[in-house]
Amino acid sequence: MAQNEFSEPHRVVYYEVDDTGHLTLAMLINLLVLVSEDQNAALKLTPAYIHSLGVGWVVTQYHLQVNRLPKIGDQVTLKTRATAFNKYFAYREYWLLDAQGEQLVYGEGIWVTMSYATRKIATIPPAIMAPYGTEPVKRLPRLPRPEHGEMTATSRMKPYTVRYFDIDENGHVNNAHYFDWMLDTLPADWLRHHQVVDVRIRFENEVKYGHQVTSEVVHSAAMTTQHTIKLGATTAVLATVTWQERS
Amino acid sequence: MAQNEFSEPHRVVYYEVDDTGHLTLAMLINLLVLVSEDQNAALKLTPAYIHSLGVGWVVTQYHLQVNRLPKIGDQVTLKTRATAFNKYFAYREYWLLDAQGEQLVYGEGIWVTMSYATRKIATIPPAIMAPYGTEPVKRLPRLPRPEHGEMTATSRMKPYTVRYFDIDENGHVNNAHYFDWMLDTLPADWLRHHQVVDVRIRFENEVKYGHQVTSEVVHSAAMTTQHTIKLGATTAVLATVTWQERS
Repeated sequence: MAQNEFSEPHRVVYYEVDDTGHLTLAMLINLLVLVSEDQNAALKLTPAYIHSLGVGWVVTQYHLQVNRLPKIGDQVTLKTRATAFNKYFAYREYWLLDAQGEQLVYGEGIWVTMSYATRKIATIPPAIMAPYGTEPVKRLPRLPRPEHGEMTATSRMKPYTVRYFDIDENGHVNNAHYFDWMLDTLPADWLRHHQVVDVRIRFENEVKYGHQVTSEVVHSAAMTTQHTIKLGATTAVLATVTWQERS
Repeated sequence: MAQNEFSEPHRVVYYEVDDTGHLTLAMLINLLVLVSEDQNAALKLTPAYIHSLGVGWVVTQYHLQVNRLPKIGDQVTLKTRATAFNKYFAYREYWLLDAQGEQLVYGEGIWVTMSYATRKIATIPPAIMAPYGTEPVKRLPRLPRPEHGEMTATSRMKPYTVRYFDIDENGHVNNAHYFDWMLDTLPADWLRHHQVVDVRIRFENEVKYGHQVTSEVVHSAAMTTQHTIKLGATTAVLATVTWQERS
């Protein structure tokens, strides 16, 4: 395995699946972040060390392509690669593989470092990229952006209040919860009979403990949904999800 | 290890902890149920087999005694024992141990089998107890019951709507979510500066997808909280939690 790659095994268990027995999208995101954190830890890039440089990693965008989601009891492999970076952005790839090594999910993410002092994007400290053994590049791959959903007569909307247990050890809302808020707005019947094929998501503004957000969804095509999570008039998250019928 | 005992290792990871870095109570419950399910599976008592007998296991009561909750990155051992049963009730014990084998949590649970046909408690089918190698007993240990909380001027109340992703593969609300609803009603400041010592909880009535429940909490003593989750006038869950200041 290349120096900038890392993988680990995982068993899908009952509290990670929905009522069809498939891994939830929220738990998939948890697992992708977990394998990145474990790679960092293996390279001695602990959260405490990164924090000591005055910054923290924040994801701004994901693109996920899903062949199928694993089921309860499945043994899978989580794999990631810190593929490329420039002064401000790091591009990371992810794979979820089944027990035979077949690809279940391919993911791409764009990460930035946020300064604790200014709460703004900071230059990525060279010390936290050096252990990966990759050289900075001029141009990073661009991820496809979500479309902007327009509220229509057929839009659905639900309110969600950020709970204490939505906050992670860094004091931020764990991004995985956005996926629950986005998809829960769809009818249960839709969620039972369709599976996610493609997700484009952009995190635009942070929400905090106690905030009440609204999750809006509209079908822009038969098998495409546009999702917006708003805090008042501010867009927190935009996403486009494509679906197919469950076989 | 006795035939009715089972244990497995677990690593506490970032999405299992709260903003103090400690394992959440909801995730603790997930892990205790996981080790029971894994013991069942090791004895070939799969959910499908149990279902084929027309019943499913349902927990009615837990009593948890917490020395301390593990932190992010900790390696722990989950252990359970199917200790005793009679015609209608099964008494199970749980332990969470740290890497040195010291007890972090001791738990007891009372389980019943629910008939899928009548939705009522059914005699426990002998076939699902035989593999444990224990004999039925006349009297089971009794767990301490939660007190009944009375709403007062200082009660706090929050509404929660049961989400699609709160439902598990059996079509029921995963009980772990009740713990989030109960504790989220307390101020974040209380949760950050206190740790759970003792939990007595009774599950009285099931709630379902789309239901809006209310979670009420009142301090019955400086370090004791009474929790009630209600669906309209019906009590779904009653719990008494004792706390101590975090050291």
